Formats: sequence, structure tokens, C-alpha cells
Amino acid sequence: MNVISEEAKIGKNVKFGNFVTVGAGVSIGDGSIIESYSYIGYSNGRERSELTIGKRAHVRSHTIIYQGSTIGDDLVTGHHAIIRENSQIGDAFQAGTGTVVMGELTIGSYVKTGSNVEIGQGSIVGSFVWIFLNSTLINDRRPPSSEIAGPIVEDYAVIGAHAVVYPGVRVGADSLVGSGCFLSQDLPPEQIAVGNPSKNIGPTSKIKYEEDGQKKNVYPWRFRFHKGYPKELVDTWLEEADKVKILDI
Amino acid sequence: MNVISEEAKIGKNVKFGNFVTVGAGVSIGDGSIIESYSYIGYSNGRERSELTIGKRAHVRSHTIIYQGSTIGDDLVTGHHAIIRENSQIGDAFQAGTGTVVMGELTIGSYVKTGSNVEIGQGSIVGSFVWIFLNSTLINDRRPPSSEIAGPIVEDYAVIGAHAVVYPGVRVGADSLVGSGCFLSQDLPPEQIAVGNPSKNIGPTSKIKYEEDGQKKNVYPWRFRFHKGYPKELVDTWLEEADKVKILDI
Amino acid sequence: MNVISEEAKIGKNVKFGNFVTVGAGVSIGDGSIIESYSYIGYSNGRERSELTIGKRAHVRSHTIIYQGSTIGDDLVTGHHAIIRENSQIGDAFQAGTGTVVMGELTIGSYVKTGSNVEIGQGSIVGSFVWIFLNSTLINDRRPPSSEIAGPIVEDYAVIGAHAVVYPGVRVGADSLVGSGCFLSQDLPPEQIAVGNPSKNIGPTSKIKYEEDGQKKNVYPWRFRFHKGYPKELVDTWLEEADKVKILDI
Repeated sequence: MNVISEEAKIGKNVKFGNFVTVGAGVSIGDGSIIESYSYIGYSNGRERSELTIGKRAHVRSHTIIYQGSTIGDDLVTGHHAIIRENSQIGDAFQAGTGTVVMGELTIGSYVKTGSNVEIGQGSIVGSFVWIFLNSTLINDRRPPSSEIAGPIVEDYAVIGAHAVVYPGVRVGADSLVGSGCFLSQDLPPEQIAVGNPSKNIGPTSKIKYEEDGQKKNVYPWRFRFHKGYPKELVDTWLEEADKVKILDI
Repeated sequence: MNVISEEAKIGKNVKFGNFVTVGAGVSIGDGSIIESYSYIGYSNGRERSELTIGKRAHVRSHTIIYQGSTIGDDLVTGHHAIIRENSQIGDAFQAGTGTVVMGELTIGSYVKTGSNVEIGQGSIVGSFVWIFLNSTLINDRRPPSSEIAGPIVEDYAVIGAHAVVYPGVRVGADSLVGSGCFLSQDLPPEQIAVGNPSKNIGPTSKIKYEEDGQKKNVYPWRFRFHKGYPKELVDTWLEEADKVKILDI
Repeated sequence: MNVISEEAKIGKNVKFGNFVTVGAGVSIGDGSIIESYSYIGYSNGRERSELTIGKRAHVRSHTIIYQGSTIGDDLVTGHHAIIRENSQIGDAFQAGTGTVVMGELTIGSYVKTGSNVEIGQGSIVGSFVWIFLNSTLINDRRPPSSEIAGPIVEDYAVIGAHAVVYPGVRVGADSLVGSGCFLSQDLPPEQIAVGNPSKNIGPTSKIKYEEDGQKKNVYPWRFRFHKGYPKELVDTWLEEADKVKILDI
């Protein structure tokens, strides 16, 4: 009971749910799962190419992915997620439930979003970025207009829940945008911003937690949190952490 | 593979996707597109009439439209949008992805919303209004209650992202509600409100941009932004702009 | 045109829409309605049991309910709602449109949410709780991490629109979290919190309304608002209200 175009290129061992639609010009990598009520290869007439999805994608039910995008391996989408046209997305992207990737943008590898995140057109998101639920990257400096200035989010940045990153604003590497923050100016690497309007309140090294009776830095998070990342990657993070500790002495 | 009631009145050249449901008592205008997984003419038993959708509607996939509403020509819905019962909606309404029009309300013509906007019951929204993503019009002064006081939004008003307009509050014509603003009191025409709790910070004429080395007013936006509006309408806006400039001298 | 597992236990007089999926290991109580495009008994491999839904459930279109949860009688879901695995949910739960119940949590009876609410894993929500639209209960103290600290929301609490309750924070019985509040510390019973960061601004008894020329308390709301609750329950609330008035003298 699926409607799958004969022109779609379906890899080996790809599984489909029920009531799935796959358009022409779609390529789905080996070992992928496309769940029920999903529409893969949707066209709004603005796509500049076909849609390529890498290996082992797990597309949850009621997801919509447009033509014109290139998505790496190990994609995961939550239910009701939308990925629009002409997006360049790396490996292991995880789009939360109801997340809207507006298209015409670039996302690196290992980026994860919570539910109902929106990433506006023109955004440039690095790798290993976390964007928590209900946060949005907006791009219109003088609404309404057609001049698009997407935010830039550098590697390892963390954007808390219910935050807004303003048009053209740069979120530095390893920085932290607090929940509820409306980030209206650039945030340097390893700094914290909070509030509406946003205020830079200093380095992420201020944020500590206790483990085994010792105070430790919460950030950079990659030195302490590894769940879901491949071992080779975690090993490089641990090496990096060791070097930093030596420098600290 | 669609379930379309034989009692529905379908115009000429209407196209359907796959797995579409259309109930009885639905009238869809000529040249419309109803995409896959949409449910048109949903009934919750509270509708006071049938559902009429004008010409050239473009209903994106996974949309739900209830019985009891009258919607003008050139409707566009984003995926997962919902328009509930007993809504009076003008021409060229564009409901963003996941937007929820709660029903029992009035919306003028050429109103556009971003993603995940909610317009509460009892709201009165004028024409040419923009409501950006994640913003909501709420209506319950003493939650929980059944006393509904919908906000009123006048023509050409712009409501930024992640804003909330409080029950019974009036948003004046040509005004600007900043992103993240919780508007708890009436905003006069051509004024700006920001913050939570909201503060009126003066006339929209304060907001300028540079073009060709000249400072120009961003608002009223209709004097500078015309994309997607019909030429005849834009011509009247340009005439109006000319008159205002003459008065300025 | 439905895909219903033969191993599912379907009660008497259960009605199905079109394009419905029901997995194995699902039990649906008598008199329930499962609308179109819904997926009941979705599995992500993490469920610890089967899915049991009580009597008279009304599951609106495009809803997804995972295996592993136990849900009482009189469930109502809005369109696009999601209830994930291993949730213990009482009677008469009403999940608004697009609400995401993240699973691994406990919800009492007669809990109602607005649209696009998210209740994080590990949350403990009492009975008769209201959570208005776009509000979320989050659970990660040091994002990203895997240490989950769900908020606790006690009976009769009201959480306004666009609010965030922080990890591990307790919302006291009969309290009020204002709209837009980011609640970062425990709120005692019958108190009001507002703002970001949140501030306790005193007892709910400060909030009055006029009826028949008399000033009355808005809260506890159960003394004045009864729509949708069973008569026996309302009677106990009225008795309680009478006693409180006597004590007041």
C-alpha cells in the first residue's frame, strides 16, 4: 500500500512502512527504514537537483523530505519532521519530532535537534551542534522582506530550549546559548549568552559539576558526554581532553 | 487510493495526492491541489455549516481542515497545518507548517503565518497581517475558564517570532510586536512593543534601513516589500507611499 | 484500507478512520475512535510492555502512540499528538494538537495540555494539571547529558503558555506558573511564579475577578470552573469550597 516511483533508486535492504510515498529522483541508501505516512521526494518546484539520502537512514512516520537535498549517512528523523529543498546535510543528522529544516542551508555532521526546532533558510550550522526543543534560527532582519541572513552556528555549540538566534548572528564554537535566550549579537567561542535581549555572561568554564567529589567543567561537553558517538571519534575527544588538562597545570 | 465523499463538490482541474480524505459537505474551488495524507472536511460535531474552500487552493501534505469554515481563494497551507471549525477566512491566507487555526474566528485577506503559529478561538485578524513562527494569539484571561476573549490584530500589523498576544489585546494597524514579546496591553497603530512584560517603545518610524546611501523607513512595510502581492494592490501601496512622502516635506 | 494487526485486542464498538495502522500487542478499550492516519502501537524497541488504552478513547487523526504505555479511560488526543513508550497515564488525559509525551514518565488523571506541549522523560505530573500551549517540561541539567531529572508537577497546578519548567523543579499543588515563565526553582503550593529567570511573586489568592459585583478568587480554579468534569467530582470540589469559605470567616 505504498506509492513508490519506479524511477526512485532504492538501496539494498531498505524497509518501508505503510502508506509511504516516494517520488521520482530520489536515492535512498542501503539499510534505510522509511516509516509509514512519510513523503520522500516532495517537490515544490524550487529544487535544484534530486534528493540523495545516505545509508542506514531511519525516517520516522509522517516525515516529509523535499527534492533537491543531499543528506549523509545515518539520518534520523522524528515523527512529523520536515527537511526542505536544496539542503546540504552531513552524516548522522538527527532532526527531532516536528523539526522544520527550511531548506537552502548547510548543516554539518552529528547535529541533533529537539522537537519543533526550526532552522531558517540561509543558516550555516557546523558539526556536533545541539539545538534543543522549540528553538529557532531566524533569518529576516526587516520582516517582512526577502533579504535572507541566516545565522551561523559553529562546531560543538549548544543552543538551549526555547531560544532564538537572530538573523546573521554567529554562535561561536563550544559556546552555550541559554534556554529562552534571544541571541541578537555574535557570541564568541566558549562563551555563555542568556536573556532577552541577550547578554554575554562569561566563559563556559564557569559552569561546573561535581563528580567523585571533584569539581569538573561541564563544557566542552565532548570531554564528558559520549553517548551515541562512534568510538574513534570519542577517542580523539579524550585525547584532546588529556592535552587540555596538561596545559591547565 | 483516496477516500473522497461522493457528496463533496469538487471544482474543475482539482488535483489530489495519495491517501487523501475528503468528507461530505465540502466544496473545493477550481484549480486546487489537495496533497497527500490531508483530511479535508473533518468533523468534530461543532461545525455550524459546510466547508467552502475557494479557487486555486494549495493544501500541502498532512493538512487538516474542519467542516464549518469559509475560506477564500488562493489558500496555501504548510504541511501539518490545521484549520478548525467555523472560521471565516479571506483570500490568499498562507498558514505556515504546523500552524493551528483554532476555529470560531475571523481572518482577513493576505494574512501569512510562519511555522507553528496558533491563532486562538475568538481572534479577529485583519488583512495583510504577518505572524512569524511560534507566535500565538491566546484567549483565556483566567485559565482555565470558558470565557473567551480573542485578541484583535489590525491590518498590516507584524508580529515577530515567539511572541504571545494576550486575551482581548488589540494590536494596532501597521504596528510591530517584537520577537519574544508578551503583549499584555493594547498597542496603538504604528507603535512598537517589545519584552516580557511588554513595553511600548515608540513609533515604527524609528526603525530605518539604508538603501542607495539613504536612510529609509522599514515600516509601513507595504511601501517597500511587495513580493507575492498582486500588481494592482502594489500600485495602490506605491501611490499611498508617494502621498505620504509629499506630506513629509 | 487500514493495517490492523490480527494480534491487537480491539474492544467493542471501536471505530477506525482511513489509513490507520495498529500494531501487535495493542489493546484498545470499548467505544474508542481511532482516526485516520494514526499509528497505534509504534515500536522503537525500547518498550517494556504492550500498549493498553482504556475505554472511549478519542484519538484524532495523525496521532502516534508507542508500545509500552498504559493509558486510562477517556483519552483524547489532538491531531499530530505523540505519546511515547513506557508512560503511565491516568484517566481522561487530553493531549493537545502536536503535543509530545516523551515517554518514561507518569501522568495522573484529568490532565490537559494545549498545542505543542512537550513533557520530558522522567516527569511526574499529578492529576487535574493544566499545561497551556507551547510549554515544556525539560529534564537535562547539563545539556547534552544522559542524566535525566524530570520536573514534578503537583495536582491542580496551572502552567501558562510558552513556559518552561526546568529539570527536577517541583511545581506545587494549586500553583500558577505564568505564561513565558522559565521556572528554575521549586514553586510552593498556591504560589505564583513569573518571568525569566523566574520569580515567586506571592500567593494565588492575590488574583481576583469580579462576579455579581463581588471580588472572588480565581484560584483554586476548581472552585469556579467545572466544564468537562464529572458531576460527582465537581460536587466534592463545591463541598471543599464551602468549607474553605467557612474557615475564611
